[in-house]
Amino acid sequence: MPTNHQIVLDNRPQGEATVDNFKLVTTDTPALTDGQVLVKHHFLSLDPYMRGRMNDSKSYAASQPLGEVMIGGTVGEVVDSKHPKLKAGDQVVGMGGWQEYSVVDATQPGALRKVDTTHVPLSYYLGAVGMPGVTAWYGLVKIIAPKAGDTVVVSAATGAVGSAFAALAKARGCRVVGIAGGPEKCAYAVNELGFDACIDYKLHKDMYSLAKALKQDCPDGIDGYFENVGGMVLDAVLLRMNAFGRIAVCGMIAGYDGAPLPLTNPALILVNRLKIEGFIVSEHMEIWPEALAELGALVAEGKLRPRETVAEGLAAAPEAFMGLLKGKNFGKQLVRI
Amino acid sequence: MPTNHQIVLDNRPQGEATVDNFKLVTTDTPALTDGQVLVKHHFLSLDPYMRGRMNDSKSYAASQPLGEVMIGGTVGEVVDSKHPKLKAGDQVVGMGGWQEYSVVDATQPGALRKVDTTHVPLSYYLGAVGMPGVTAWYGLVKIIAPKAGDTVVVSAATGAVGSAFAALAKARGCRVVGIAGGPEKCAYAVNELGFDACIDYKLHKDMYSLAKALKQDCPDGIDGYFENVGGMVLDAVLLRMNAFGRIAVCGMIAGYDGAPLPLTNPALILVNRLKIEGFIVSEHMEIWPEALAELGALVAEGKLRPRETVAEGLAAAPEAFMGLLKGKNFGKQLVRI
Repeated sequence: MPTNHQIVLDNRPQGEATVDNFKLVTTDTPALTDGQVLVKHHFLSLDPYMRGRMNDSKSYAASQPLGEVMIGGTVGEVVDSKHPKLKAGDQVVGMGGWQEYSVVDATQPGALRKVDTTHVPLSYYLGAVGMPGVTAWYGLVKIIAPKAGDTVVVSAATGAVGSAFAALAKARGCRVVGIAGGPEKCAYAVNELGFDACIDYKLHKDMYSLAKALKQDCPDGIDGYFENVGGMVLDAVLLRMNAFGRIAVCGMIAGYDGAPLPLTNPALILVNRLKIEGFIVSEHMEIWPEALAELGALVAEGKLRPRETVAEGLAAAPEAFMGLLKGKNFGKQLVRI
Repeated sequence: MPTNHQIVLDNRPQGEATVDNFKLVTTDTPALTDGQVLVKHHFLSLDPYMRGRMNDSKSYAASQPLGEVMIGGTVGEVVDSKHPKLKAGDQVVGMGGWQEYSVVDATQPGALRKVDTTHVPLSYYLGAVGMPGVTAWYGLVKIIAPKAGDTVVVSAATGAVGSAFAALAKARGCRVVGIAGGPEKCAYAVNELGFDACIDYKLHKDMYSLAKALKQDCPDGIDGYFENVGGMVLDAVLLRMNAFGRIAVCGMIAGYDGAPLPLTNPALILVNRLKIEGFIVSEHMEIWPEALAELGALVAEGKLRPRETVAEGLAAAPEAFMGLLKGKNFGKQLVRI
């Protein structure tokens, strides 16, 4: 069996996360037992939720245990199999973690999913046609539930979730406005991702300034908001929400590093009779087939062409993850392994 | 036609509302035209929502215009009628405002509702079997939607909404915990309103202390919360909400007087996948008949016996309203006219 390299969580962040929270280790790959499969990873997905797992505090999911391989989505191929339905060469998506190989109990439902790369590149199964895409789908379709003509807004607009959100919302006849950091990302959102407008939050020093920009780009107000960041962006959007608006809360990355970021004016929830709902897409497996089918079709039709930022080699993962948390990536952040 | 006394909004509050924001005026009552009815008010309802109307800022409802009779729910009897379905002596509920008499266009749907006082005292139609009761019903049944065994919490527990909430929640097999100000109100909540426990928020100097008290009285966490106050109470409840909890936002009285009160940790919405929804019961008229029927039955069966605080005479309304905003009333605040 091949030698494996793994990245484990070595210690928990004190405030901001750093590359020193991680450690690269070398291990042997154990021999397969019945029902198990050995997968060689081609790509590792880096996602904001991982930052939450690094903390010890009560979070919406179990903490990442110290000394164990960091959790993470992976795509790769089967190189050895003791499971009747999987054979060497099969391309699979799973939660293999930050390592080169994983040994997976393929008898466990949902542990590995075979994928077809005829129309969809393998790496997309970690992004547009994977967890981030389904996340966008759930928030848009199940929580925001827009009708044609509604104005919907998404923060972290050029990320994996934001890109899919734009394509899904355009397909439903919405006006889609993004919020992103920097002129390059904003231009990309409008020119390549199909956003009707994109606001550079870095140009705005407070919620009132950002709310003014939102007023300009959302002349009919905001009916639905997909929240990835929290903080000032959420405060500004709340000032522009229409009556009976819906907010899907998927992430609050702005508050991961320390003291909670308050929401400035919660009374607006009442004033505008808003519905705000937090969700985790892995708790709604029943919608995945429908969502993946739509996302795959959008990719095949060329209506969803997300950009990827690819770091080279497992050892580059911690640094790439720090970049993701600071918004340095452009589109879906991957590690080629 | 009789001489009428009215209380108008004379000027808007600068920060805290005061009795000097109001002015008592004397007017003639105009002669009736076809379809109109003259109602002599017996009781005026005082409600927290009125404070919001006093501000000029964008709110969920129109501002109270300066120089006009303050908005308010009333019960009384018809003394003169030019409407075929209403006659002198009929007991009616309406939005007559802060005045002794009102002239009502009874052809307008919903302007006046005839009520039966065989089993329900007239004044209850302003409280338990009126807007506050229906408000409790909507938040509990349509937003919190509890199942038997759930723990539900309500702030301003001994008020008109809180009392009805307790009876409705007990009827659904919930554990009901109240939050109120002072030992007398808390004892009343448990001994007479059917709460399983009631926490005196005045004993707690911060959200962590209050959250600790909530942990003790809600050992299985909180599944549903009915929000009347905002501020520290909401912060504390958020720390104890269970996954997939629901929060119905009906009022945020703590923030009416000036700077918005922030919500300390909105990331908990995501962590616990909460649903938070603001509502105004007058926008959901379709549920009123069902809600009023249940509330009337609970009163008739003796399962809902709300207390009332009655101020004597129209001129006492402003002072009584200030008391309501400070929580000095005990149960439903009324003015006998």
